[in-house]
Amino acid sequence: MAQIYDKVALIGLGLIASSMFWAIKRGGLAGEVVGTSRSAETRAAAQEVGLCDRIYDNVADTVEGADLVVLCVPVGVMGAVAAELAPYLKAGATVTDVGSVKADVIAQVAPHLPDNVHFVPAHPLAGTEHSGPTSGFAELFDSRWCLIVPAEGSDPEAVGKLRSFWEGLGSFVEEMDAEHHDLVLAVTSHAPHLIAYTMVGVADDLRRVTDTEVIKYSAAGFRDFTRIAASDPTMWRDVFLSNKDATLEILGRFTEELFALQRAIRQGDGEHLHAYFTRTRAIRRSIIEAGQDTDAPNFGRQAGKQP
Amino acid sequence: MAQIYDKVALIGLGLIASSMFWAIKRGGLAGEVVGTSRSAETRAAAQEVGLCDRIYDNVADTVEGADLVVLCVPVGVMGAVAAELAPYLKAGATVTDVGSVKADVIAQVAPHLPDNVHFVPAHPLAGTEHSGPTSGFAELFDSRWCLIVPAEGSDPEAVGKLRSFWEGLGSFVEEMDAEHHDLVLAVTSHAPHLIAYTMVGVADDLRRVTDTEVIKYSAAGFRDFTRIAASDPTMWRDVFLSNKDATLEILGRFTEELFALQRAIRQGDGEHLHAYFTRTRAIRRSIIEAGQDTDAPNFGRQAGKQP
Ligand SMILES: NC(=O)c1ccc[n+]([C@@H]2O[C@H](COP(=O)([O-])OP(=O)(O)OC[C@H]3O[C@@H](n4cnc5c(N)ncnc54)[C@H](OP(=O)(O)O)[C@@H]3O)[C@@H](O)[C@H]2O)c1
Ligand SMILES: NC(=O)c1ccc[n+]([C@@H]2O[C@H](COP(=O)([O-])OP(=O)(O)OC[C@H]3O[C@@H](n4cnc5c(N)ncnc54)[C@H](OP(=O)(O)O)[C@@H]3O)[C@@H](O)[C@H]2O)c1
Repeated sequence: MAQIYDKVALIGLGLIASSMFWAIKRGGLAGEVVGTSRSAETRAAAQEVGLCDRIYDNVADTVEGADLVVLCVPVGVMGAVAAELAPYLKAGATVTDVGSVKADVIAQVAPHLPDNVHFVPAHPLAGTEHSGPTSGFAELFDSRWCLIVPAEGSDPEAVGKLRSFWEGLGSFVEEMDAEHHDLVLAVTSHAPHLIAYTMVGVADDLRRVTDTEVIKYSAAGFRDFTRIAASDPTMWRDVFLSNKDATLEILGRFTEELFALQRAIRQGDGEHLHAYFTRTRAIRRSIIEAGQDTDAPNFGRQAGKQP
Repeated sequence: MAQIYDKVALIGLGLIASSMFWAIKRGGLAGEVVGTSRSAETRAAAQEVGLCDRIYDNVADTVEGADLVVLCVPVGVMGAVAAELAPYLKAGATVTDVGSVKADVIAQVAPHLPDNVHFVPAHPLAGTEHSGPTSGFAELFDSRWCLIVPAEGSDPEAVGKLRSFWEGLGSFVEEMDAEHHDLVLAVTSHAPHLIAYTMVGVADDLRRVTDTEVIKYSAAGFRDFTRIAASDPTMWRDVFLSNKDATLEILGRFTEELFALQRAIRQGDGEHLHAYFTRTRAIRRSIIEAGQDTDAPNFGRQAGKQP
């Protein structure tokens, strides 16, 4: 891979930023990668694992002379962070972000940026339930999609460069408009996360079913939910508040369908249930065929050791 | 492992029965393992992969002389199958089942069994989303729990033997009463499955978000749901109808909590969301510590190949 940017600045040093750093180095995509994070603790932890060529304690020094500035903070603070660093941006620089919501982030960030920089929002569809500067790894984006959501009037050359950059990080890249992005993600990610959080919360509430039993006997189903529901609380709070309308729309449809299935159970309507479950099987097949997941027994995981 | 039963009869030859066969052979737990399945198609497929020492086309021959008879059919037909085979049971034999629901199965099966056999219901907490005679593998039960639910007046010796048998199959064994079993499973497995089915159904309904997009961009969250929702429609229809009360109770609590979270999103109550999500994280930690899942990046799965 050829170098794409001379200097890349990572704002925020969590899972996504640290994975980007390792993948940039693996691909030789930048001459220099610098970064900053709000807390001294995170900066020290980053330093210790060798993250970034240089780490600064302020955004002014971090973005100085950078060709690409990547906002890797929770979506709720993208606007504030953009306002803080805007005065120090190099003319002609590209500003991008990795936020899980796009319309709201664009509305927050765009007003703060000077006319002489390019704003090209993006969202890598890759993550784990871990966070922080030590959770990153170079392979996170490999064979995953990155959606680029060019703002109105985005410079095609700046968009093309960012596309090459994400391809260099290992991703497949597609462009999409912000509203559509937010609806697709509400279906595939945001609503499922809220649902998983809710189910795990219900289990935690049930005092008759003691904690240890829920944990000990957590079979497929609940176990998958707990993994999803272990994701970072701040990130997800911000996602739901920023993608409020699309998330609420999908959740509205979800509760409607769930009521219909509950009614079928109550009335003993086995045909309705069987037909519904048969239909959902097909989607799974398509995902396996699309190469987005493995079909290995026990979900490719290893059974753990037990007492 | 020493031989525990002289002759084991498997009634039904799907995922659970075929996994039991391979694990019995691996452990040398039985002198002979015979089996039967309703359809000629399944019996032929079983024969082809070498399942069972002998396969019969009727239950009478299958259970004849068997020391252990294992009902491995959907929970909705346990009673009918028990009625059919009851006349041919050997005196002193143990009848068990592997059904995912216990109170209803006991109510269905017990009345048909003669007094001179032991009925010891059980439920291995292990499965995949696959089914049929070719989906089994010897390791399915390794390090997973098997819950034994002795019926009233179950013979302690028969219970002890079945416990050793399941330990020989690789499981950890615990005893539990039927009502408690059904509530724990409603929380850890049945309600999560219905919720996953529902969410995948919602995605399938959304025509604005085209199928290919939902599949292509299915990130963590939805992808996990589709795997759960790919499970066998007949098995799950029967589970929900047989464990109606506990499932509906948990789903009632679930919708209550989901409404509260939806309200928090609508009102922008970030504190409520953050506190909720922080609480659910703890459960995940406990499951990892209990050894029921791995903490590997990308959930231990490999990113697939893509166009
Ligand atoms: N995790 C995923 O699965 C995933 C996937 C795709 C996209 N994303 C998006 O990527 C972005 C970062 O997520 P991540 O998983 O990398 O998060 P993370 O590991 O939790 O790291 C978050 C970073 O943001 C900083 N930060 C938090 N609050 C801040 C504030 N109020 N002001 C300034 N900085 C703040 C943190 O600084 P300190 O540590 O110094 O406090 C840390 O450097 C988010 O917008 C998220 O939506 C995440
Ligand atoms: N899969 C899991 O994750 C899991 C986990 C724990 C417990 N269980 C329980 O284990 C049992 C079997 O599940 P499985 O996953 O092994 O199912 P499976 O792979 O779908 O196999 C089902 C077996 O039952 C037979 N069967 C279906 N309907 C029948 C009927 N009306 N009359 C007689 N036989 C019938 C089938 O016969 P044909 O193929 O010949 O039609 C087949 O042999 C169920 O009670 C289930 O609740 C399942």
